[in-house]
Amino acid sequence: MDIKEFVAHSIGRWRSQRSAHHLAFGHFEAVQSEIDIVSLSIDDPEVIELCKMYSIDPELAVSPFRMSWEGQSDWDENEAVKGTCILVPVPDPAQSNRGKLLRDQGYAEEIAAVGDYYLTDDGTFVLVTAYERAAAEEKIWFVNPNVRCRVSLIKTSAGTGVVTASFSSEIRQTS
Amino acid sequence: MDIKEFVAHSIGRWRSQRSAHHLAFGHFEAVQSEIDIVSLSIDDPEVIELCKMYSIDPELAVSPFRMSWEGQSDWDENEAVKGTCILVPVPDPAQSNRGKLLRDQGYAEEIAAVGDYYLTDDGTFVLVTAYERAAAEEKIWFVNPNVRCRVSLIKTSAGTGVVTASFSSEIRQTS
Repeated sequence: MDIKEFVAHSIGRWRSQRSAHHLAFGHFEAVQSEIDIVSLSIDDPEVIELCKMYSIDPELAVSPFRMSWEGQSDWDENEAVKGTCILVPVPDPAQSNRGKLLRDQGYAEEIAAVGDYYLTDDGTFVLVTAYERAAAEEKIWFVNPNVRCRVSLIKTSAGTGVVTASFSSEIRQTS
Repeated sequence: MDIKEFVAHSIGRWRSQRSAHHLAFGHFEAVQSEIDIVSLSIDDPEVIELCKMYSIDPELAVSPFRMSWEGQSDWDENEAVKGTCILVPVPDPAQSNRGKLLRDQGYAEEIAAVGDYYLTDDGTFVLVTAYERAAAEEKIWFVNPNVRCRVSLIKTSAGTGVVTASFSSEIRQTS
């Protein structure tokens, strides 16, 4: 599986159950959300702008997409968990299973971020992103075409301690 | 990482936070438990008996261990989640990263079971076990020597539908 196939499999609307484990306190958080993943044109002005922000030739980008989510956490039922971001994979010209992933809004800190991804032999997408005060490590894989699993770890920026480990099971919505 | 190293890294006492997602209903279950993993001798009578049950030469077994757990689910706070089982890896003589894992008590159904495991290039242990009415797929990996993640999927025996997806974050207890 290469990044184009991985993104193609991800396009659609997903119902997500996410559990976050706040490790120091042994706390559980449960989030239910809807996630929409739509493909963008390689010529989209926002895609080109994001490439320029990281001084990357837009011609190197493949399969850009927008991810939007809206949900509810059991920690604060009045506040909607809502957001949207643009993601742009830029494969390494020398190694087809590796590359950079640009995003206009990060996960651990809400700023633009660039992560390093690779795809394992068994089709798991692994993304490592270093932020100023934290590092995020995500693994995403398909159990079947309609079920996706995602594990996200937020670590201290030194990279040793794990602060939050969260798991999402995502079911494709067919409607 | 081979299976001997993987088991060696796993030996110890772990505090586990587990979230189970019951996908059809969108339900969350939270379980807190302590897990003890202790190595067993290759000559242990219970190890030899388990090998014999599966007609496997006990000389092929490596790094047998006992796993015990005791915890509490938020679904039934009065009932302790408790159990113990013996696990015996039997590497494939032809491929060092693959083999069978014998256990005297299964996860999805409480009967003895044999699963097929492999270790990926990036050190994830993947175990697939077929039961009479279900199939289980587990992935376990170390984030660092003191943090382990485990994703377990229970599928219908046909192998297509995912019934339960659960995630454990396990922190080594040093005492």
